[in-house]
Amino acid sequence: MRDVSIIGVGQTAVAEHWDRSIRDLSVEAIAAARQDAGSDRVDVLFVGNMLSGELGGQENLATLVADACALLPIEAVKIEAACASGGAALRAACLAVGSGAHDCALVLGVEKMTDHLTDGVTSALALAADADYEAAHGISFAALNALLMRRYMHEHRARHEDFAPFSVNAHRNAARNPRAMYRTPITVDDFVGSPLVADPINILDSAGICDGAAALLVAPSSEARRARRPPVRVTASACATDSLGLAERRDPLVWQGVADSARMAYEQAKVKPKDIDFFEVHDAFTIVSVLTLEACGFADRGSALKLAAEGRIALEGDIPIGTMGGLKGRGHPVGASGAYQLVECVLQLRGEAGEAQVKGASIGMAQSVGGSGSVAVTHILQA
Amino acid sequence: MRDVSIIGVGQTAVAEHWDRSIRDLSVEAIAAARQDAGSDRVDVLFVGNMLSGELGGQENLATLVADACALLPIEAVKIEAACASGGAALRAACLAVGSGAHDCALVLGVEKMTDHLTDGVTSALALAADADYEAAHGISFAALNALLMRRYMHEHRARHEDFAPFSVNAHRNAARNPRAMYRTPITVDDFVGSPLVADPINILDSAGICDGAAALLVAPSSEARRARRPPVRVTASACATDSLGLAERRDPLVWQGVADSARMAYEQAKVKPKDIDFFEVHDAFTIVSVLTLEACGFADRGSALKLAAEGRIALEGDIPIGTMGGLKGRGHPVGASGAYQLVECVLQLRGEAGEAQVKGASIGMAQSVGGSGSVAVTHILQA
Repeated sequence: MRDVSIIGVGQTAVAEHWDRSIRDLSVEAIAAARQDAGSDRVDVLFVGNMLSGELGGQENLATLVADACALLPIEAVKIEAACASGGAALRAACLAVGSGAHDCALVLGVEKMTDHLTDGVTSALALAADADYEAAHGISFAALNALLMRRYMHEHRARHEDFAPFSVNAHRNAARNPRAMYRTPITVDDFVGSPLVADPINILDSAGICDGAAALLVAPSSEARRARRPPVRVTASACATDSLGLAERRDPLVWQGVADSARMAYEQAKVKPKDIDFFEVHDAFTIVSVLTLEACGFADRGSALKLAAEGRIALEGDIPIGTMGGLKGRGHPVGASGAYQLVECVLQLRGEAGEAQVKGASIGMAQSVGGSGSVAVTHILQA
Repeated sequence: MRDVSIIGVGQTAVAEHWDRSIRDLSVEAIAAARQDAGSDRVDVLFVGNMLSGELGGQENLATLVADACALLPIEAVKIEAACASGGAALRAACLAVGSGAHDCALVLGVEKMTDHLTDGVTSALALAADADYEAAHGISFAALNALLMRRYMHEHRARHEDFAPFSVNAHRNAARNPRAMYRTPITVDDFVGSPLVADPINILDSAGICDGAAALLVAPSSEARRARRPPVRVTASACATDSLGLAERRDPLVWQGVADSARMAYEQAKVKPKDIDFFEVHDAFTIVSVLTLEACGFADRGSALKLAAEGRIALEGDIPIGTMGGLKGRGHPVGASGAYQLVECVLQLRGEAGEAQVKGASIGMAQSVGGSGSVAVTHILQA
């Protein structure tokens, strides 16, 4: 398989884009990525998206995007892996370019959720749970994560406010990202006092519902030097799954699919967790960051809260996470989030992350997770 | 890119499976394919599906299938390209195995539609049209195809009954396929007298709404000889797109994406239309067969009806189509249909198509089309 690199990135601001369609957002992000790469060549398009059918009445989305971006008759398909769709779309591009079938793949993550803020987003998100054994009982994604959080607090004698550093860190980083949705720093008191969503999860434990699109261009590393911007190598691309339903797991606090995906990525890139300079974590809820850091080997079981409390997840810490705000601070347009993480990884590795720059960053990891840790796509990128 | 082959196939009967879930159908088809291959190895799963979110309240479908088939923690994603999803899933498998990243890919096409026969299938199918510029006006897929058929009849001075041979042929072939949904032969009189759906399209112009799952195992050709059954080589795999909306095309009777996809496939396999021994055509409506045969070079513009009238599309003709019944006779579980076509291709090339066997078949073509010809995935398989 050929070595591949990312040669261009683009993104829209993450926001409530009530005046713009999924088509508009896609065109903006793709045009930006193509301009960034300084190349007109595109051979294939992979669109990561979860909810265009449910919320937008639109399947066949990849064809729509190819059409809107004047890319016809390009090969184009949509990749769906719930909230991991954005990461899965880059994985598809790595296979397509790695195989030699194509020399330039375009990856788009896009989601438009806020037109349905009050009539269907929560039930739409439940499509990532097990329809027969979870969603049919009326449980929402916030409720599933609340069960995990409550169990974690019980098992490790933690208090709700111990989770505050994750949210505080995300908002602090988002304030430095002009594309982020929530650019207001918060305090521990803000976190503790924010309205309850599903006990013990409150608003500030939860990533926001929003709209956005992010795009990346992928080429063989051997040809990437011709791009306008410094290419970033994809040194690992790995996907793994776990049971769809939480109740089917031996231990719900062990996210095995997330762990498997990370382990495969470390093996491919020949690195260890300590070699990772920053980690774009899938912080849909604070408990997800905790379980993920433990599953990926950044913290021992039960010790991720300590990692956060000691400030080690901050931009100047030894394992900065959500460096541009993460899902919590930047916003979480579900099927697009994986692509945003990867765009941010590339910006960090090029030294273009502005005020959010992690000093000396040369190895970044991004992990896109779908369902309750039921599918995870991990990429390791290197400058 | 490595040469790849199909080493095992499996399928459920196509029917109204009211007593079985999407999980049940998936498990049956996959178990059959794995038994057929005589191999336990599976490295990655690609699920072709269009409507599990809209009709089943289930996204994250690939993870569900991986879980139900005891394949965890396997890499798994859903591929969506409207009604071309089944063909697109094999395309993804070709890239994954061709790249060298995986040595055995499992392809599943699955769809469960009949639980919503009376409350939503028609609007769900319209998700493949342009939501903003077609579906918003209330036009259904049958209506879009009716516009095409009316225009074709006008331009080529054809009568509705001239389309009968396609439907008669499909039902004749389906009667020989124990997995098909409509196993009753029909006459031209039956065709002419069947109830109107969207003038001039009637019931017997249209493929039926149904449930089903079909699966294939893909391996490098160099290793395929170890399989239990004779491997079938994939000598071409190509995807192309056209505008989503019909109104955006210069000439709606020229299906350019379909033509581009077929042309690329011919180039890859180094064959011409006359070399193809049989063609699994995407006959969702009789007009689709007509436009496809013309776009793919089997008939000149305006002459596909003559091809059918002369019996050349029959099993004993020079270009048999829909040999196991096609979408019309076998049934059209939309996201699964492409996988059914490919399974049937493999059976033909192995000489295992029973009463539907095309004598001496050694090169088969299957084409999976989404939207109004807006995305097409073409595969050429060789014994």
